[in-house]
Amino acid sequence: MDKNIKQIRDNFPILKRKINDSPLIYLDNAATAQIPVSVSKKMMDFDETYRANVHRGVHTLGMWATKYYESVREKVKDFIHAKSEREIVFTSGCTDSLNLVANTYGEQNIQAGDEIVVSIMEHHSNLLPWQQLAMRKHAKLKFIELDQEQKLDLADAKKKITPKTKIIAVAQVSNVLGCINPIKELAQLAHQNNAVIVVDGAQAIGHFDVNVQELEADFYAFSGHKMFGPDGIGVLYGRKKLLEKMPPYRLGGEMIANVTREGATWAPVPQKFEAGTPNIEGAIGLEGAIDFIEHVGLDKLRQYEQDLIDYVFPKIQKIAGLTFYGPQNISERSSVISFNMQGIHPHDLATALDLEGIEVRAGHHCAQPLMETLGVESTVRASFAIYNTQEEADKFLSALVVIKEFFQNELR
Amino acid sequence: MDKNIKQIRDNFPILKRKINDSPLIYLDNAATAQIPVSVSKKMMDFDETYRANVHRGVHTLGMWATKYYESVREKVKDFIHAKSEREIVFTSGCTDSLNLVANTYGEQNIQAGDEIVVSIMEHHSNLLPWQQLAMRKHAKLKFIELDQEQKLDLADAKKKITPKTKIIAVAQVSNVLGCINPIKELAQLAHQNNAVIVVDGAQAIGHFDVNVQELEADFYAFSGHKMFGPDGIGVLYGRKKLLEKMPPYRLGGEMIANVTREGATWAPVPQKFEAGTPNIEGAIGLEGAIDFIEHVGLDKLRQYEQDLIDYVFPKIQKIAGLTFYGPQNISERSSVISFNMQGIHPHDLATALDLEGIEVRAGHHCAQPLMETLGVESTVRASFAIYNTQEEADKFLSALVVIKEFFQNELR
Repeated sequence: MDKNIKQIRDNFPILKRKINDSPLIYLDNAATAQIPVSVSKKMMDFDETYRANVHRGVHTLGMWATKYYESVREKVKDFIHAKSEREIVFTSGCTDSLNLVANTYGEQNIQAGDEIVVSIMEHHSNLLPWQQLAMRKHAKLKFIELDQEQKLDLADAKKKITPKTKIIAVAQVSNVLGCINPIKELAQLAHQNNAVIVVDGAQAIGHFDVNVQELEADFYAFSGHKMFGPDGIGVLYGRKKLLEKMPPYRLGGEMIANVTREGATWAPVPQKFEAGTPNIEGAIGLEGAIDFIEHVGLDKLRQYEQDLIDYVFPKIQKIAGLTFYGPQNISERSSVISFNMQGIHPHDLATALDLEGIEVRAGHHCAQPLMETLGVESTVRASFAIYNTQEEADKFLSALVVIKEFFQNELR
Repeated sequence: MDKNIKQIRDNFPILKRKINDSPLIYLDNAATAQIPVSVSKKMMDFDETYRANVHRGVHTLGMWATKYYESVREKVKDFIHAKSEREIVFTSGCTDSLNLVANTYGEQNIQAGDEIVVSIMEHHSNLLPWQQLAMRKHAKLKFIELDQEQKLDLADAKKKITPKTKIIAVAQVSNVLGCINPIKELAQLAHQNNAVIVVDGAQAIGHFDVNVQELEADFYAFSGHKMFGPDGIGVLYGRKKLLEKMPPYRLGGEMIANVTREGATWAPVPQKFEAGTPNIEGAIGLEGAIDFIEHVGLDKLRQYEQDLIDYVFPKIQKIAGLTFYGPQNISERSSVISFNMQGIHPHDLATALDLEGIEVRAGHHCAQPLMETLGVESTVRASFAIYNTQEEADKFLSALVVIKEFFQNELR
């Protein structure tokens, strides 16, 4: 094992665990990444040193907590290369961020006859808010289909995006297919048609450098827990001009300018979108996660994941009877591999791997319309992170072969 | 200092801090309570042992995480004496819980001409969602006023609540006046008129035993961070029959039964209301907070806070030039004391106290219509918790006298 990777692994105590008497091999990173002990400690340090509510107190603790909380906003701004920290809204997660856009920008701007375009590979969190918005507003929801390589069909996107299109909502990386979508091209198509693009960054953030300005994204959503941060914290990036025109989302404390019995006016962005006590500890944890990622280095992280996939993919493809989903070209892929094994239900395969301590996911991955398009009910998904090793990949590959042989003998 | 209280304080490392060279005296518990190290450690232990996404994996970690997360729901159910764990929805906080009810139950049930009744002492989080709902629906928002003792005027409530009333939204304890409101009587008035009652429990939970069935509450909302838990986690209790009829709130993963290109059906409650990855660590922290409270004992906790107020209130009332808000009768009060000092701006008073390490809040406390009713722009608020001591109360009282004299001399 690479010495650097050993050091990284030491920061994740859970990786020393045993599952069913075997060392844990955690390959469910697309659902939730593990959290470094340095991040947990940072949150605990905050609680032992600065814990207070933000934006409220005139007391020292409150001022420190506010300063700290706002410095994380600054850090997130730099991390995704936004123009201004006012474009960074803290939410409870990526799902919350996407619902925010649909219920404010969407509610305000979609009218009967308008069109909303999503891709068929969207996670339910970037599909349902648009589907229900379209239903409420008598607008039309259109799907960008897959091409023959099972990645986003840009030619189809060009057909589907028209002057009637008001919103395009697409994931930067599919949580099933692992493909990296051409966000910049889609953004340009959106803007040529006076539409906005909402990017679900859940599976991209923390895997490679995300530059919202280069992507020309109007909105960009992600969660902390998939990028080595804690649960319950997420981010919505939005262009300042758009955020400023939008009505508020949740209503309550700290998002107001003035409240009377008869009505209310709202605080400037981003406070307008942060009603109530925010997840301050979560934001501190998010800072820790960014520190961790920057300490490793995004380039190195991307390269390492790429090398792992370069190692695994050709080998796993040689196992007969496996069907893979998504593009076969590794350079177009993230570290997510979805597949099925002939004659074995994905759940049984995941359970058999679990008996060897190997944690993968099986199911529809909250992408049922994609499953229907692929002609399956579910798949197995292995997703890799910086702390996974070639040794773990070998064990995963061997286990697949053993399980396959076992089930084939059972079936005879 | 009581030996038990010393033991309790040892569980809160932040209390050993110095602020402006004086030992921290934290009297801003109504904004955010401090968190016991036992709670932080429980969250860290979870991350080092079980961290995974819930309801998703077939793997061991995912199953453990799910079991643990669901066991917290069971614990919350017992803590507030709900009938079923299906009545417990995890949210990102009290504000989120209240917005959930307004945007689902409210959206579904309020029509033009209907009436929504709130009290004039509501925190913006239990006012704005109803005010905006009423505006959207052309319904009428009515306010229950204060009586002469500056507590909720039950006689006025009886006048304001009519057969036109569909929703009553009231805090169990005011975050400014400290009064404990007659929820059961209001609930009965609601039910006599076929209305529902939504209770903001933010300032009640963790201070005394809350029994949603005895209160006859239809909805009850609270946050973890005001009851010694972490940020970013809250609860909405709702009667199962009501929750089942309500449309979903946020849309996304894990709250669906089935999704197609054309539409979706929803999961049973409470999952219907928990889209996306929940704040699993937050729920674990909430469990820790309940454990802490139950270890101290709710009766003892209530008695201790009451004794502190019994000690402080008559002494603070003797300081000339102070105006107090809320009922003077201590048995009708929580551990919140709001006041102003003649000739000194609340912010200056809070800043002067901060120089002595005493952290109180000054402002409108997210209750601007109440401030208007009281004829002030803001107040100082001191709020006590189980780890505050009589010695701290004495220092607070002495500091008030010194500050008063200082400002009086300045003014001469």
